[in-house]
Amino acid sequence: MSKIGVIMGSKSDLPVMQDAIDILKGFDIEVEVDIVSAHRTPEKLFDYGKNAHSRGFSVIIAGAGGAAHLPGMIASLSPLPVIGVPVKSSNSIDGWDSVLSILQMPGGVPVATVALNGAKNAGILAAQIIGAHDTCVLDKIIAYKEGLKIKVNESAKDL
Amino acid sequence: MSKIGVIMGSKSDLPVMQDAIDILKGFDIEVEVDIVSAHRTPEKLFDYGKNAHSRGFSVIIAGAGGAAHLPGMIASLSPLPVIGVPVKSSNSIDGWDSVLSILQMPGGVPVATVALNGAKNAGILAAQIIGAHDTCVLDKIIAYKEGLKIKVNESAKDL
Amino acid sequence: MSKIGVIMGSKSDLPVMQDAIDILKGFDIEVEVDIVSAHRTPEKLFDYGKNAHSRGFSVIIAGAGGAAHLPGMIASLSPLPVIGVPVKSSNSIDGWDSVLSILQMPGGVPVATVALNGAKNAGILAAQIIGAHDTCVLDKIIAYKEGLKIKVNESAKDL
Amino acid sequence: MSKIGVIMGSKSDLPVMQDAIDILKGFDIEVEVDIVSAHRTPEKLFDYGKNAHSRGFSVIIAGAGGAAHLPGMIASLSPLPVIGVPVKSSNSIDGWDSVLSILQMPGGVPVATVALNGAKNAGILAAQIIGAHDTCVLDKIIAYKEGLKIKVNESAKDL
Amino acid sequence: MSKIGVIMGSKSDLPVMQDAIDILKGFDIEVEVDIVSAHRTPEKLFDYGKNAHSRGFSVIIAGAGGAAHLPGMIASLSPLPVIGVPVKSSNSIDGWDSVLSILQMPGGVPVATVALNGAKNAGILAAQIIGAHDTCVLDKIIAYKEGLKIKVNESAKDL
Amino acid sequence: MSKIGVIMGSKSDLPVMQDAIDILKGFDIEVEVDIVSAHRTPEKLFDYGKNAHSRGFSVIIAGAGGAAHLPGMIASLSPLPVIGVPVKSSNSIDGWDSVLSILQMPGGVPVATVALNGAKNAGILAAQIIGAHDTCVLDKIIAYKEGLKIKVNESAKDL
Amino acid sequence: MSKIGVIMGSKSDLPVMQDAIDILKGFDIEVEVDIVSAHRTPEKLFDYGKNAHSRGFSVIIAGAGGAAHLPGMIASLSPLPVIGVPVKSSNSIDGWDSVLSILQMPGGVPVATVALNGAKNAGILAAQIIGAHDTCVLDKIIAYKEGLKIKVNESAKDL
Amino acid sequence: MSKIGVIMGSKSDLPVMQDAIDILKGFDIEVEVDIVSAHRTPEKLFDYGKNAHSRGFSVIIAGAGGAAHLPGMIASLSPLPVIGVPVKSSNSIDGWDSVLSILQMPGGVPVATVALNGAKNAGILAAQIIGAHDTCVLDKIIAYKEGLKIKVNESAKDL
Repeated sequence: MSKIGVIMGSKSDLPVMQDAIDILKGFDIEVEVDIVSAHRTPEKLFDYGKNAHSRGFSVIIAGAGGAAHLPGMIASLSPLPVIGVPVKSSNSIDGWDSVLSILQMPGGVPVATVALNGAKNAGILAAQIIGAHDTCVLDKIIAYKEGLKIKVNESAKDL
Repeated sequence: MSKIGVIMGSKSDLPVMQDAIDILKGFDIEVEVDIVSAHRTPEKLFDYGKNAHSRGFSVIIAGAGGAAHLPGMIASLSPLPVIGVPVKSSNSIDGWDSVLSILQMPGGVPVATVALNGAKNAGILAAQIIGAHDTCVLDKIIAYKEGLKIKVNESAKDL
Repeated sequence: MSKIGVIMGSKSDLPVMQDAIDILKGFDIEVEVDIVSAHRTPEKLFDYGKNAHSRGFSVIIAGAGGAAHLPGMIASLSPLPVIGVPVKSSNSIDGWDSVLSILQMPGGVPVATVALNGAKNAGILAAQIIGAHDTCVLDKIIAYKEGLKIKVNESAKDL
Repeated sequence: MSKIGVIMGSKSDLPVMQDAIDILKGFDIEVEVDIVSAHRTPEKLFDYGKNAHSRGFSVIIAGAGGAAHLPGMIASLSPLPVIGVPVKSSNSIDGWDSVLSILQMPGGVPVATVALNGAKNAGILAAQIIGAHDTCVLDKIIAYKEGLKIKVNESAKDL
Repeated sequence: MSKIGVIMGSKSDLPVMQDAIDILKGFDIEVEVDIVSAHRTPEKLFDYGKNAHSRGFSVIIAGAGGAAHLPGMIASLSPLPVIGVPVKSSNSIDGWDSVLSILQMPGGVPVATVALNGAKNAGILAAQIIGAHDTCVLDKIIAYKEGLKIKVNESAKDL
Repeated sequence: MSKIGVIMGSKSDLPVMQDAIDILKGFDIEVEVDIVSAHRTPEKLFDYGKNAHSRGFSVIIAGAGGAAHLPGMIASLSPLPVIGVPVKSSNSIDGWDSVLSILQMPGGVPVATVALNGAKNAGILAAQIIGAHDTCVLDKIIAYKEGLKIKVNESAKDL
Repeated sequence: MSKIGVIMGSKSDLPVMQDAIDILKGFDIEVEVDIVSAHRTPEKLFDYGKNAHSRGFSVIIAGAGGAAHLPGMIASLSPLPVIGVPVKSSNSIDGWDSVLSILQMPGGVPVATVALNGAKNAGILAAQIIGAHDTCVLDKIIAYKEGLKIKVNESAKDL
Repeated sequence: MSKIGVIMGSKSDLPVMQDAIDILKGFDIEVEVDIVSAHRTPEKLFDYGKNAHSRGFSVIIAGAGGAAHLPGMIASLSPLPVIGVPVKSSNSIDGWDSVLSILQMPGGVPVATVALNGAKNAGILAAQIIGAHDTCVLDKIIAYKEGLKIKVNESAKDL
């Protein structure tokens, strides 16, 4: 059974990252949450990145803000797909630093970057990655997208 | 057997997108390349997006520049994971339009965005997504990353 | 008789888009308002874009925020003039994503872009497009501009 | 018969603005080209803006770069729809000044802004504005869009 | 006796522009305040710009926000030195549009631009321009600068 | 008789700053050119700034690039009007650093900033400052502006 | 014994700069705090910069906002290492001016720039500079970093 | 005797980083150059960062481009002062990503950032850090600064 690791650089990122946890739980996908700071706990970063694929994770979602090195360093250490969530933290310059330091990875080491504070989409993307080979999850995503459609149509009727 | 769709908005995007094709072929992963323009061939866009998962694709890589709507619209239409490559095309404002119009998707519809012109990383990410449930591909990625390391170490010796 | 379609990607865009509706009603121009999400209701997007000119619309005003694909996709599907309103939505990076993903359309498929949150101007522009062949509306625009002048002059007297 | 005014702030803008002229001629729409500098010929600017609608123009396309005031000042003076083309001139900061000084018009005075150097789209948009009440021109636009589609499909076959 | 014209595009700019008025009054320099909108009162703009030097003004301070054309258009019409104040108005994109559309004037037509919302400095600069040939005003500026120094030194003592 | 000081941070700024020198010579205004580096010759900076008004200068034009401190430091030291020219030097980030470090002076110490590389306009502005109290120079500026108009009109005839 | 000078352009920068003072006191490093304004007290700036190394300072930390010239001018005047803190002051454009006018120093005159409002890191960096030759301080830094790690690990347990 | 480590993420950064090496050699300071890639050789990164202070380094200069994580990760691992050089590499968005991902470090883990491509200043800063406790090096820096002054004064005479 697939398991997703959701990590963040600081506990202050949790309100943003909770969206990823919630959406994955809604898809009945197992999630393991941890705080791993690239700059304050580099040994934990190394252990986490080196061992994630052996520990049964399929995908890692990493959120960080400012000079956000966590997603890229996990991608350096792990062969798994890594999804990066740029967090608009209090020390960020309007989020541009968070976005660019996650997105602009060099050739050879990708990070699948989502929108600023887009943890919800990180959760959906992780589910889609599992759904790429698990038709049960794929069906849940199809149903989820159908649900989005229904909500928009209902809001249109309210006009 | 997994198959990756590589599409782009214009033939002029091919020199950038070729990196994704090459890396996937290097991993022995089947690739199907096509030109699908969100703005000039919207019907083809719809057909492609609606049917990609039935046609056996596991992941779609979509590259576009300027007001780049192709990756997001494919993500709107398909339940598959979509990787977006912002292309620094001739009509782009230094690439910022390409990046922002792919990255900043609304909650519910993610695009896994890579660096500007980062098609090579899009290919690796697609392989990692397949590797998340295919240990043969995962091993190739581990070997690929080992190869990166060796090259850097050799270049360090040349100093 | 000319009719203007005013659409938006989400009901949360209505407070901004209401300015377009109000100004058009002030010019006694018929308006039809709807919610059409490029990313959550792509089929509705297609129907809307494909049929707008047959359904009697002269101009379409489309507002969206973040990776804002609605105006450009409507412009892809319809031969009518499309006015795009970049909305500074909550998930936007200071509005830059909204502006660039609407403005920077490729050659062949224009969107008439107005200022960030500039729905009022979208309404006036739609009226001007009708006024280009309807002297009654043109006269109303001339009167409207005269009114702007009077208000400024009065505020100058207050100094 | 409708007539489009194409004006620009300097003769050096002509290589960019020629795209608008060419596309309009391709649609058999009458075009009148002139150089009107907001900053060096303000009287000509006033005459042009004040009289354009009486002189039989339906739409004005205005291109300028840097602190580009021509489109907005024409929009100030004329009740006609004004299309602004931000030109990436030699004195521009990567085009950002051209874009923002045309796009960000205050409430009451819209400029229909197209992409940086997007004169071709300005021409198409002008044609669409005429097509909004002239089915002959509308049909030409439908045919033009069909032509775009065919070209993309042919380029896809070449892959 | 020298007289300074302080104009602004909208009464809503007054809270910012008041700083220029206050500083000039502090230097006992005559000020005349008016509202002149480039986009809503173009005739007044023309009259003002064309006649300012005959009416006894030495310098014009013009403040505006968004696509701010007032300073540049006054500079187009008048041979006097024009000081531009970029105002961070409610419709501005973080002030960038205000700054760039005032600063980036083409060769031949300068605007002396000060900082965003820097109306105080516009007042001082106008006084310095008068002081360039009026030693009485120059002495006041020297005294003013001495006063700045004293205040800083006092605040340092408070530490 | 008025004299203008034209200074720059490095000899490499001369090709840009020459435009200011040429325009002032064209107006028969005396110019004294020097290289004063805020960062490499701070004592010369102090001497220059402290004594400029006693040495008979009316206006100082200062050009610099990157973290451009020369114009602001001269404005700190001198009661004269200081015109700043942001130079797009080789070490600049697209000119943004040059522009912002000259423009964004704190309240109390203005720099009259012109466009990026806008040394020509710095020269004209200096002439306008002299013209504010010297009708002979004012007439030359009026004639210069008339000349700009004639050139534009001639280029319009060439179309 | 090493002593660190902490200076700032205005008393309003103190709430930000206090972080540097606090962290240095925590490391038992002597700190001397002063207000030195590059633009309002240039003579004090000169005295400070010229004499800092003779007065026993090892490092200078300088904070300023907007067109922030204080750190660069101190670096011009002093042979000591200068740490610059870009302050997001009220007159700053989202902090970009503060950052660029401190960071982008020309070749020959470095400023060690830290993050926007990053005075805490300026303090740590100053301690590290002392620690580069003082093993007692180096040990305190090692302990400080160990403390960061423990706090993150504890916050991880709270999840 | 102090020793400086100069590392970079890729051999392609050497032309930029050579300036740091040259300036340090000019100051007779020992330099050790290596290639350490945060993303391709994470184990080497860890060894380097963990052991640098035991191996006799006083300061580490780290250069990288794009999502540049090398300087920040070394700062995470080492108690030594780390100087970061943002490199404008081919995959960078005009250098903004390089600058922001090095500069915007979180509280607790500073990187002393210099200008884009400012390796020369990184070398001088490293020398200044050594000079903070080594009067022989301090004297060399004073002489170096004197040399800068002489060169500027000579170039001024050439005018």
